[in-house]
Amino acid sequence: MNYNIAVIPGDGIGPEIIGEAKKVLDKVGSVYCHDFQYTKVLMGGISIDTYGVPLTDEALETAKNSDSVLLGAVGGDVGNSKWYDVAPNLRPEAGLLSIRKGLNLFANIRPAYLYKELAAACPLKEEIIGEGFDMVIMRELTGGLYFGDRFTKEVDGVMTAVDTLTYNETEIRRIAIKAFEIAMKRKKRVISVDKANVLDSSRLWRKVVEEVAKDYPKVSLSHMLVDNCAMQLVMNPGQFDVILTENMFGDILSDEASMITGSIGMLSSASMNESKFGMYEPSHGSAPDIAGKNIANPIATILSAAMMLRYSFDLDEEAKAVEKAVELVLQEGYRTADILSEGQNKVSTTEMGDLIAKRI
Amino acid sequence: MNYNIAVIPGDGIGPEIIGEAKKVLDKVGSVYCHDFQYTKVLMGGISIDTYGVPLTDEALETAKNSDSVLLGAVGGDVGNSKWYDVAPNLRPEAGLLSIRKGLNLFANIRPAYLYKELAAACPLKEEIIGEGFDMVIMRELTGGLYFGDRFTKEVDGVMTAVDTLTYNETEIRRIAIKAFEIAMKRKKRVISVDKANVLDSSRLWRKVVEEVAKDYPKVSLSHMLVDNCAMQLVMNPGQFDVILTENMFGDILSDEASMITGSIGMLSSASMNESKFGMYEPSHGSAPDIAGKNIANPIATILSAAMMLRYSFDLDEEAKAVEKAVELVLQEGYRTADILSEGQNKVSTTEMGDLIAKRI
Ligand SMILES: CC(C)[C@H](C(=O)O)[C@@H](O)C(=O)O
Ligand SMILES: CC(C)[C@H](C(=O)O)[C@@H](O)C(=O)O
Repeated sequence: MNYNIAVIPGDGIGPEIIGEAKKVLDKVGSVYCHDFQYTKVLMGGISIDTYGVPLTDEALETAKNSDSVLLGAVGGDVGNSKWYDVAPNLRPEAGLLSIRKGLNLFANIRPAYLYKELAAACPLKEEIIGEGFDMVIMRELTGGLYFGDRFTKEVDGVMTAVDTLTYNETEIRRIAIKAFEIAMKRKKRVISVDKANVLDSSRLWRKVVEEVAKDYPKVSLSHMLVDNCAMQLVMNPGQFDVILTENMFGDILSDEASMITGSIGMLSSASMNESKFGMYEPSHGSAPDIAGKNIANPIATILSAAMMLRYSFDLDEEAKAVEKAVELVLQEGYRTADILSEGQNKVSTTEMGDLIAKRI
Repeated sequence: MNYNIAVIPGDGIGPEIIGEAKKVLDKVGSVYCHDFQYTKVLMGGISIDTYGVPLTDEALETAKNSDSVLLGAVGGDVGNSKWYDVAPNLRPEAGLLSIRKGLNLFANIRPAYLYKELAAACPLKEEIIGEGFDMVIMRELTGGLYFGDRFTKEVDGVMTAVDTLTYNETEIRRIAIKAFEIAMKRKKRVISVDKANVLDSSRLWRKVVEEVAKDYPKVSLSHMLVDNCAMQLVMNPGQFDVILTENMFGDILSDEASMITGSIGMLSSASMNESKFGMYEPSHGSAPDIAGKNIANPIATILSAAMMLRYSFDLDEEAKAVEKAVELVLQEGYRTADILSEGQNKVSTTEMGDLIAKRI
């Protein structure tokens, strides 16, 4: 079949890791007889340099009209880049927020999985990890503090800044449904994370999540306060299967969880709308410090492409083939610099892509 | 000298751990010739049971008129307590938020320190901890999402909940000054944590912190995004000296940091206003599941009393004597259940208090 993929290389290491993901997709295409077509779209710093804005209307349209979006990473070195000498809504990351909202990608799926081959890179003691670490964070992505009204102004002679955290039932219900659907395919446990002892939005969150849970009697639901969750992730990570949470809490907790897997260079993510449309990207950033050196880890992007095959194109077998290839390469001892430990073969970005493509 | 301390035992294990802290203070009093007078104040569940509200105006007045406040913990088992079948502002925790605001305790100082005797209880690998872990989180405590306007109402037929995150220059400046002052007495490094790539309040935060930093040329200041900080705490905790952050981020990050020390049962905290007045309490909660069993760890509360001696009464020598006594008891191998590991002496709450008092 024919698939039309909008590809956004972005900034920093973005173009390098995207190159490897395309290499792997092309191999999938030739083995399984699919035709992946790529349409390049500019976003982030490179779009600012070219068009003066981090995302043009045309770019958003192109993404909208594709079958799915594959994204590298956007942004630069905040302290040392001219991209940041402007209003926040003109900076590279603003492109990311605009495309999330513009494509209505409210469901951000962030798996955190510790490969046993990478146990050495995990910062937690063996007895804490126990039988392994394999969870998914389901983060709401188009609401909350990220998209509420905000302003800074003088109030009684004092500069005052306000951000607004808003959620309505509809927004909560649709992300909760996604979380329970994913839990049904996993260990059937959802932990919903909020701050219901303080926030009104968290109380509504809890109420709606409880309602949705009634439609999934096989899934066990519990609630955890966000401060406790930040603690439990370090103390007893094995208790988690699916975490369901709002935008800002999800941002914080998914980064924390990612570290438990040893390297954020391994973590894929998908951002979906109501249908099968999604934007797929590594959980890590554009890493400007190592850009252009052919040393970045392309695995997170390659695994994101696998998520795309599964969630947007229903190509489960092909997705598994990619995941299997990644596992094989790790078992054989090949490592990019970020996940290197003693006695293994250090490889470059392009070598890693070649090795994985070859095993499909 | 004469010191008038308002004592709030609170709920759950609160009365037990407060009893041990008083025992230690009394010993300090007799050795160093101070007279500590205690006035008992009700707050939380016990105040609800007695007066129908989590904090009465009289209780707040008594606290205000004291030289400092020593607090155990408030709250019950959310799922199984009648205290929670009411509006949030009538629940036990509402008493805590009211007293923080009512006493203007904007500066929450949360040290996180790994005793080398407790290294076995730390979830992080030895090579991650490196030379040890000793940091302070300076959390803003009377602003942000905790105290902004909030409401839940139907908007176009859909229930919608709103919380507001507000900070003004004055609020940010005073907590920043406290953080830099503390850094001057430590390793002179402040990391200010925000989400300035998204929030207006974070951008104002960053600007004001930069201004305050100019008055402390000896202190190095850097900024970190909150998601990255949640990751760095697990990956490279040794890089932190003083973290300065807003209320909600501080709530999440301080719980995360506390786990690195092995047990939240070890962590003290102080909440201060502009002057030397403070409320001192353990970082942990009321642990209703172990209340009344004489097994809770009283060390966090005893160390909080030490902070009171230092910060509110300028009794630095006495504070050190308490801290030294705690260290001695740990070195001698005495442990409450929460920090017990093989080959050590398990002791009860009251035994631990006795042991520490004896060594002063
Ligand atoms: C770049 C930033 C705006 C973004 C976010 O906070 O959502 C990033 O941290 C992420 O998690 O994708
Ligand atoms: C009980 C709760 C309201 C409180 C908070 O969130 O501040 C607690 O978690 C804390 O950190 O002291």
